[in-house]
Amino acid sequence: MWWSIFSVVDLEYGKFSEDNKEYIITRPDTPTPWINYLGNSEYCAMISNTAGGFSFHIDPRNRRITRYRYNNMPTDRPGRYIYIRDSKTGECWSPTWQPTLSKLDGYECRHGLGYTKFTSSISGIEAKVTYFVPPDSNVEIWVLTLKNTSLSQDRWLKVFSYCEFCLWEAPRDQNDLQSIQFLGISRFNNNAVLYHFFDESTGFAFFASSEKICSYDCNRESFIGKYRDESNPEAVEIGECFRSEAVGGNPIAATASSVSLEPLEEKTIIYVLGVSQDKSEIDSLIREFTDKENVEKEFQKLRDHWESFLSKVNTKTEDLDFDAMVNVWNQYQCRITFDWSRYVSFYETGIGRGMGFRDCAQDVVGVVHAFPQRVRQRITSLAKNQFQDGHVYHIYFPLTGEGGFPYYVKKDMQFFSDDHLWLIPSVTEYIKETGDTSILEEKVEFVDGPPATIYEHMQKSIEFCKSMLGKHDLPLLGTADWNDPLSLPGPNNAAESVFAAMLLHKSLTEMSEVSSQTGRGTESTTYKKLAKKTRNHLNKVAWDGDWFIRAFDDSGSPLGSKECKEGKIYLNAQSWSILSGVASHERGIKSMDAVKENLDTKYGLILLKPAYSRYYKEIGALSSYAPGLKENASIWSHANAWAIIAECMLGRGDQAYEYYKKLAPPSKNGMASIHQAEPYVYAQTIAGIDHSAFGMARQSWLTGTAAWMLKAATNWILGARPQYHGLLVDPCIPSSWRSFRMTRQFRGATYDIKFSNPLGISKGIEAIHVDDKLFENNLLPTFSDGKTHKISITMG
Amino acid sequence: MWWSIFSVVDLEYGKFSEDNKEYIITRPDTPTPWINYLGNSEYCAMISNTAGGFSFHIDPRNRRITRYRYNNMPTDRPGRYIYIRDSKTGECWSPTWQPTLSKLDGYECRHGLGYTKFTSSISGIEAKVTYFVPPDSNVEIWVLTLKNTSLSQDRWLKVFSYCEFCLWEAPRDQNDLQSIQFLGISRFNNNAVLYHFFDESTGFAFFASSEKICSYDCNRESFIGKYRDESNPEAVEIGECFRSEAVGGNPIAATASSVSLEPLEEKTIIYVLGVSQDKSEIDSLIREFTDKENVEKEFQKLRDHWESFLSKVNTKTEDLDFDAMVNVWNQYQCRITFDWSRYVSFYETGIGRGMGFRDCAQDVVGVVHAFPQRVRQRITSLAKNQFQDGHVYHIYFPLTGEGGFPYYVKKDMQFFSDDHLWLIPSVTEYIKETGDTSILEEKVEFVDGPPATIYEHMQKSIEFCKSMLGKHDLPLLGTADWNDPLSLPGPNNAAESVFAAMLLHKSLTEMSEVSSQTGRGTESTTYKKLAKKTRNHLNKVAWDGDWFIRAFDDSGSPLGSKECKEGKIYLNAQSWSILSGVASHERGIKSMDAVKENLDTKYGLILLKPAYSRYYKEIGALSSYAPGLKENASIWSHANAWAIIAECMLGRGDQAYEYYKKLAPPSKNGMASIHQAEPYVYAQTIAGIDHSAFGMARQSWLTGTAAWMLKAATNWILGARPQYHGLLVDPCIPSSWRSFRMTRQFRGATYDIKFSNPLGISKGIEAIHVDDKLFENNLLPTFSDGKTHKISITMG
Repeated sequence: MWWSIFSVVDLEYGKFSEDNKEYIITRPDTPTPWINYLGNSEYCAMISNTAGGFSFHIDPRNRRITRYRYNNMPTDRPGRYIYIRDSKTGECWSPTWQPTLSKLDGYECRHGLGYTKFTSSISGIEAKVTYFVPPDSNVEIWVLTLKNTSLSQDRWLKVFSYCEFCLWEAPRDQNDLQSIQFLGISRFNNNAVLYHFFDESTGFAFFASSEKICSYDCNRESFIGKYRDESNPEAVEIGECFRSEAVGGNPIAATASSVSLEPLEEKTIIYVLGVSQDKSEIDSLIREFTDKENVEKEFQKLRDHWESFLSKVNTKTEDLDFDAMVNVWNQYQCRITFDWSRYVSFYETGIGRGMGFRDCAQDVVGVVHAFPQRVRQRITSLAKNQFQDGHVYHIYFPLTGEGGFPYYVKKDMQFFSDDHLWLIPSVTEYIKETGDTSILEEKVEFVDGPPATIYEHMQKSIEFCKSMLGKHDLPLLGTADWNDPLSLPGPNNAAESVFAAMLLHKSLTEMSEVSSQTGRGTESTTYKKLAKKTRNHLNKVAWDGDWFIRAFDDSGSPLGSKECKEGKIYLNAQSWSILSGVASHERGIKSMDAVKENLDTKYGLILLKPAYSRYYKEIGALSSYAPGLKENASIWSHANAWAIIAECMLGRGDQAYEYYKKLAPPSKNGMASIHQAEPYVYAQTIAGIDHSAFGMARQSWLTGTAAWMLKAATNWILGARPQYHGLLVDPCIPSSWRSFRMTRQFRGATYDIKFSNPLGISKGIEAIHVDDKLFENNLLPTFSDGKTHKISITMG
Repeated sequence: MWWSIFSVVDLEYGKFSEDNKEYIITRPDTPTPWINYLGNSEYCAMISNTAGGFSFHIDPRNRRITRYRYNNMPTDRPGRYIYIRDSKTGECWSPTWQPTLSKLDGYECRHGLGYTKFTSSISGIEAKVTYFVPPDSNVEIWVLTLKNTSLSQDRWLKVFSYCEFCLWEAPRDQNDLQSIQFLGISRFNNNAVLYHFFDESTGFAFFASSEKICSYDCNRESFIGKYRDESNPEAVEIGECFRSEAVGGNPIAATASSVSLEPLEEKTIIYVLGVSQDKSEIDSLIREFTDKENVEKEFQKLRDHWESFLSKVNTKTEDLDFDAMVNVWNQYQCRITFDWSRYVSFYETGIGRGMGFRDCAQDVVGVVHAFPQRVRQRITSLAKNQFQDGHVYHIYFPLTGEGGFPYYVKKDMQFFSDDHLWLIPSVTEYIKETGDTSILEEKVEFVDGPPATIYEHMQKSIEFCKSMLGKHDLPLLGTADWNDPLSLPGPNNAAESVFAAMLLHKSLTEMSEVSSQTGRGTESTTYKKLAKKTRNHLNKVAWDGDWFIRAFDDSGSPLGSKECKEGKIYLNAQSWSILSGVASHERGIKSMDAVKENLDTKYGLILLKPAYSRYYKEIGALSSYAPGLKENASIWSHANAWAIIAECMLGRGDQAYEYYKKLAPPSKNGMASIHQAEPYVYAQTIAGIDHSAFGMARQSWLTGTAAWMLKAATNWILGARPQYHGLLVDPCIPSSWRSFRMTRQFRGATYDIKFSNPLGISKGIEAIHVDDKLFENNLLPTFSDGKTHKISITMG
């Protein structure tokens, strides 16, 4: 390889494009595969910066189209591969580096919004490959353009394509080899490969090309050859496929086409991989998606789709990285996370767990401004996972609708103390964004009972909490709360969660407010009283003198208290004391100062301190992680977002911004070999200061961080927060910013807001002009007139 | 590679050693990995002819020690790898070919009984590696001997070892990457690598060496390097490990030691990989198993163990291949199959399913002569999986004891029509071998009820059948019978199994006989009457004119009848009409003639004909296989064994032998590129004549074929069959044999039997001499005197 594998210098691996809409990776050997998601909400294709990755239809567990091998070496195989072979010299390479790993003269991978583009060159052949999924079809398109850059030499090439099919049910593909080895049929006919089960029960996958396919392989072992792999297939080596069929075995679609190029000539081949339940429509799908003009149209449609999606919020500040995140990448990640929850990524296998209840309920907050209708659908899907007593399934599977609990759930405590509560803010955020209170009246069945309104579902969430209180009058922990491995096991099942109590307080406040807004005065008063009681109670039992404790274990001892030997202070108990409205300003300041003092590191806030140095049976699963990993004191991005919001709530814009910047993906650009994960999206967890790999990120893409960081940036730093009757503006910025601008679409109007900060403060508004008229307060009106309104705000 | 990968000549890949106790593989690129099982009944290590494979402790699902990637490319990775690097030239290679795939000057792999030995050479270094698991310890030993074959040159080598650990729970290792990436700790200390969870909850794995380890890696990514794999680890390339720890990540044990060799000098390094629940005993285990003298002793113990195991049955005929199978390989396969049922092989992942009830009940027949005590334990374990109504779990997991049904079980028919019945012949075969009727009185609990005697369990099996009869008065099919995908679904759940009815008849006969032998006269008469009724009834409703039909589907239509368009004749209905005693001699002959005419192919008997050409919903899963695959008309080895026995029962020794020879693994030796699987053990299924890969075997090693083929050879061809009161001799041989010899240990005495066949017949006995005295019949007495008795038999 021409880039040294022994380099200790932390080279950059890439950067944002000028318009921020692409991340450009400039060398292929990224520390981990840096990926992108292509697809609409049905067809999803994950692709790495070396074309690794797999595709599925609706559900990665039950409708897996192509294979991917996790835990594999080399990492990141297989994928959507193209091989080029010079017919004269026999030289073979892949324009996406993998799988041949050939030395390229040039390499660039651009991850864009719903597409990924490669450009590479070798021995006078320039190759461009664009992969994308059209917005409304169950296909993925690979567009390959080859150019002979020589001024004098003709070139004769053979171009191969390769993808490996999966048995539709991904778990069986791994666990029950008898199935995949005997059920699948992959055959070539009429310039296309068709893959299906012999019984045709689960539909068809197809692969075709715009170019004449002169030979093909449908059987993996034929194409690859014995004791070889994707890096050196026998077919590519000899320059022709073996025309194999797969009737059983490992089905693939591999094709070979001949391309001759005169000097400076350019040719394009379009490949299409897709699925259909209906055999008879496949021919027309192939015609449609191998037609160059049509493919160009589809690509434009895709760009328009994303332009529209991103247009709802936009900012221009003095911080280009901040803008790149808010305007593009954080919003993009929010959408991907909304689509796939924690179900399927390069870390989540897509067969281990489904969509998370609490995860989805938080994810909606990141996209509710962009497509509220889909959010409303999601909320009602979630409500279907609630039982009549108010508790909910922890996970559900999108294709089958089946709900469930993960394997680690306590057998005699089949609930989490927080899951059900997250339904409430998801609904109230939806109403605040849209003004659409009709969602409250929509009727949705319980898992075990007849339909009830969403409002009633929300009431049930509160009721379940109230019915499950422990001896400190706090919510019983159940299997855990937001902190999944904080299981605090014991003979009495008596552990209680302070965090859940804080979330309960927040939920009661939201319930009181939404009740009052919808003419439910009695309920509003009841919830308000309950909130007050909860708040007072928490301040009594959970205040440790300088910060809030986190929980009580099975024996009634506190966690996150000065009394503890390890785990003396927990981050979330502090941030949530503020987010929930439980803490007074004074206690809030004290708590967050303690956070700063104890939990801050150069890469972000760790979850707790000191890390547990060994396993404690009364702590449980959390202490089964080594210090600095996961919930045992790693830097948990999601929780950092909460801390940022808390600081904004306390009015400390510089502190909030400092925390924001530490976590922001662009800040990882210069330390890729430490951070390892993609520097354009958030990762769930970053090894904490107690671990030797301090700063190493894992579980990128699918994390609640996306929604909460976007909210931290737009609603709290920039400070534009939808309310029931208008758009509140209340920025809390770094004091160094002198001016910034934000456009926000809200209830059918565009708010074009210019902020000036002549005094260099973080918080406080001197004057607001709306459409050039002075406006009396910071709750901007709901115009709903389809027009753009100029807002000018002077801080002071 | 120096052997051509394009060769169309079917080269031999190996042969048996002269004493038949080793299979010698002479080129490494076998069509599939050709494997061996090392281990005792706790520690199991599978190893291929290129050192691929994995290890587990007791249970491959819950106690997986090392990783293996199924569906992988290159096939067969990772494994137990050794790398050698010439410190002067930098040349690197593996003495087991994989993973470096370097061109070796010589290669040989010998799979022996519980051990595998490699010999290879390259550039003047000869390497021998022996892998084995001592009989009584939870460790595996790798003995590497290096020799400098040069007469003049000194050599300086660096020797690396490599194995990759698994999260103990293999399913989580695949499905929930968060676990493996964050829980495991692998560290080097005191010349050994120790791997465990941070919470130490599941014990320890360790890896150590007899040689000083000069550098090590415990983290896979460090040793291998980015975008590399086992074939070219960065550490090996540069000649030193990176001294990495794994706290989370992918834990491995990799070591490097320096070896210098003078001309003709030889050095040995011993590696030991093992597990222990007790951290404090690990040091002494390492000392014990890195001591050369002790390791030699352990190896001898292993050889003695197998000598003893195989000594119970031995034959010398005119057919050397027949002897190799009966004396060594078929017995060996029986033992492996007994140990692991259909749970874990290179085809069975060890996480998809557990031990099979019907499988285990049949497997005991293959080993009952060799270690009856273990068989008795297995039978009682099986009986624990029976419900009070008589039906049984289809599978169970050995570590946890948990029983269950596979995913494809019919929700409203949670039973198989045959499972429970197999308990009966397993018990009666045990008693006939041992004379130990006390097993009948042993009490074992039901899944859902209090203890009952094994005899009562057997009665329940019959009762369940009687309680589940369909409209033809045959056993309801339930989910299926022996033929798992023969599900015959339909709205009425009314399908019936003729096969199960035949097995019921056989079971009734056995019950009648065992009842009579143990003073249960009334029961004996009842069962006898029931048997007669069943027999007559079957001959009425299931006789199709020229053969027996196989089943009735949900609508009451017959399967395996001339009336059918496809699936007109099924093999098992014919063979079992004879095995069960249902058919008259005349109908038996007619049935098996129909088998010969319709189902015979050059590679064996196919299961049915014509194969189903498409999916039929009334046939169900069986027709979801393409023609010629699996139960849709492949050559099913297990069913071929039954046909061989049936032919022996009919007295047609030449036909039986012809079928036997077609399936016998040595017959595959000359057609390895077609057969693909190992030519020293049986495979479950061989693609039938309707498939383009006709002759290709899959699912080698773990198959009921092992037990039934051994029984076909020893009990029916050689004809020595244990009875309640003696050893019956009644051979049915190929008429070409003129003489043969068999020794058989039976109830504490050795029967040294010489047969002569002067007339060249297949069946019939003229005279028997026992210890030189004429003996009046062919039921040899039970001597039980610890002595050897000479038996001489003249056929005629």
